[in-house]
Amino acid sequence: MKVNLGIVGAGIASRELHLPALRRLTELFKITAVNSRTRRKAEEFAKIAGGDVEVFDSYEEMLNSDVVDAVVLAVPIALNPQMIEAARKANKPVICEKPVAATTKEAIRLLHLPGNTPIYIAENYRHIEVYRKAEILIKEGRLGKPLAFSWLKWVDFGQDNKYVQTKWRQTPQHIGGFISDGGVHDVAALRKILGNVEEVSGFSEKNFDYLGAENSAVFNMTLGSNVIGNYSVVYGAPASLNRFEIVCTEGIVQVDKDEATLEIYSSDREKLFLNKTDGFAEEFTDFHRVLEGQINSLGSVEEAVMDLATIEAGLISAKEKRVVRVDSLLNES
Amino acid sequence: MKVNLGIVGAGIASRELHLPALRRLTELFKITAVNSRTRRKAEEFAKIAGGDVEVFDSYEEMLNSDVVDAVVLAVPIALNPQMIEAARKANKPVICEKPVAATTKEAIRLLHLPGNTPIYIAENYRHIEVYRKAEILIKEGRLGKPLAFSWLKWVDFGQDNKYVQTKWRQTPQHIGGFISDGGVHDVAALRKILGNVEEVSGFSEKNFDYLGAENSAVFNMTLGSNVIGNYSVVYGAPASLNRFEIVCTEGIVQVDKDEATLEIYSSDREKLFLNKTDGFAEEFTDFHRVLEGQINSLGSVEEAVMDLATIEAGLISAKEKRVVRVDSLLNES
Repeated sequence: MKVNLGIVGAGIASRELHLPALRRLTELFKITAVNSRTRRKAEEFAKIAGGDVEVFDSYEEMLNSDVVDAVVLAVPIALNPQMIEAARKANKPVICEKPVAATTKEAIRLLHLPGNTPIYIAENYRHIEVYRKAEILIKEGRLGKPLAFSWLKWVDFGQDNKYVQTKWRQTPQHIGGFISDGGVHDVAALRKILGNVEEVSGFSEKNFDYLGAENSAVFNMTLGSNVIGNYSVVYGAPASLNRFEIVCTEGIVQVDKDEATLEIYSSDREKLFLNKTDGFAEEFTDFHRVLEGQINSLGSVEEAVMDLATIEAGLISAKEKRVVRVDSLLNES
Repeated sequence: MKVNLGIVGAGIASRELHLPALRRLTELFKITAVNSRTRRKAEEFAKIAGGDVEVFDSYEEMLNSDVVDAVVLAVPIALNPQMIEAARKANKPVICEKPVAATTKEAIRLLHLPGNTPIYIAENYRHIEVYRKAEILIKEGRLGKPLAFSWLKWVDFGQDNKYVQTKWRQTPQHIGGFISDGGVHDVAALRKILGNVEEVSGFSEKNFDYLGAENSAVFNMTLGSNVIGNYSVVYGAPASLNRFEIVCTEGIVQVDKDEATLEIYSSDREKLFLNKTDGFAEEFTDFHRVLEGQINSLGSVEEAVMDLATIEAGLISAKEKRVVRVDSLLNES
């Protein structure tokens, strides 16, 4: 079944992340419509996308049009819940960029929407090979039992970075600005590999006005099975680094997403070079599987809620100077 | 002035750390006496030390003997306060291994001892070139303002490690076992480079019985001037790593003590290779300076108390699941 897609939002994600992926998946999807806040941007997108793409001035009209079977949301985070809800009301399946909502509370609302047309939250990190390989490595137990992890993320986003230039990111309606925007990715991979986060305790700082919100954070976490770890992030750093390490009883694995390598320090030291995928084609393929009736395990609202709640627990911890249980945010609804 | 030293304790520190340093400082010091819990070990030490070394069966006798001008304590941590106090009572200057006491409370007592003969706490990390260079680099502001730090320390201490084999480390009387024993070093360097720690929030775990106490910890810290950071440590890891990074506005510096390198990521990336000193000869030289009436800024009890209190704040935080201010431990006395 080839699915006719209506694209909503004609910004960076649609143009630079989704479009290249969808061009590789022409057997599965066809872009048939686009809607954007400004008609000019929608028309530009239609031109780049090529083929026969109808421009809609209204999201509602697009949802109710016969030319789309499903919609792709790549809009400012705070708009996600209401637009997902509208899709569900119109009985149109939706794939939506992350974080799923501006706050965990908003996200939880989505778990209780009436109807059952698929809602798929696009979390490409759950599809990236280097993380999937790390998950297998840990789960097959070759490195023994996990003890601790460290995730360091220095991001060199300056004032002229294209994401920083986005208006809605400069005055974010969503919690923690880039810390949640980028952070839910890392938490998604972390949770996939090591399991759910139980408690978070951290500090944060806002060093730069141009980044809109807190830009630095150090979040300690406890996970099940006595694993502890730390996620440290600085947006606006002068150089970039993204290094995730898991210390196990029999070996240490170091995951470098940008280089797509797994380095294993154990009795035999080895370095695995993996495919450098960004996960976008894989997530759209998975969405297509879900549209065909398969279980949605990698893009469910439930998983997206857990990712966001983990980051929000850290942000609350930093603000209120206390240890925050992730499930305390989940039971609040 | 050549100082006659009485060595107390004939274990690993005296034999493998102090003796090689003192052999390089024969212009400043002469080992004239040794005392140990067992006479046999003292006699062995006297033999290795060479020359005319008197063996004392009692610490008190040694303190009151004319053959020593000052004493060097390298004994189980919990014994430090009472032995420092005895040295002060006997008006004998003392240089004592770290941590200064089993708890911050015990350490604070030492600030109020009567008398004024020098007490020098041997903290070799304050003398190690790679950390001194990092301090200068940060303080001269070439990398801008510090934002955050990360200190990862995986230590591959197995059951047969010589320190692990020490009886008093297997059933530690001092807080946090290796986490304080090794941790005060790192905190000393951290504080020298970035300033005092204000708050600590963390989690800890005890994964291995053979290490005596908690062996894993993730401690988040706030420092003055809005700097936040994380100190993550695992003793009993399958491989070793000791990497301290400071993210500043204009550059990142990565300090590797074991390789004695400073790697600077800024507009011009560079790697500095420094002298691989362990700091022991330097700390004894500094002790000699203090004996000659100079100010004790690198080996004071005050500094040692702050190092220990920082680690204890983290251990309390982990146990009681709350943010702990370091000064709350200092004002308790």
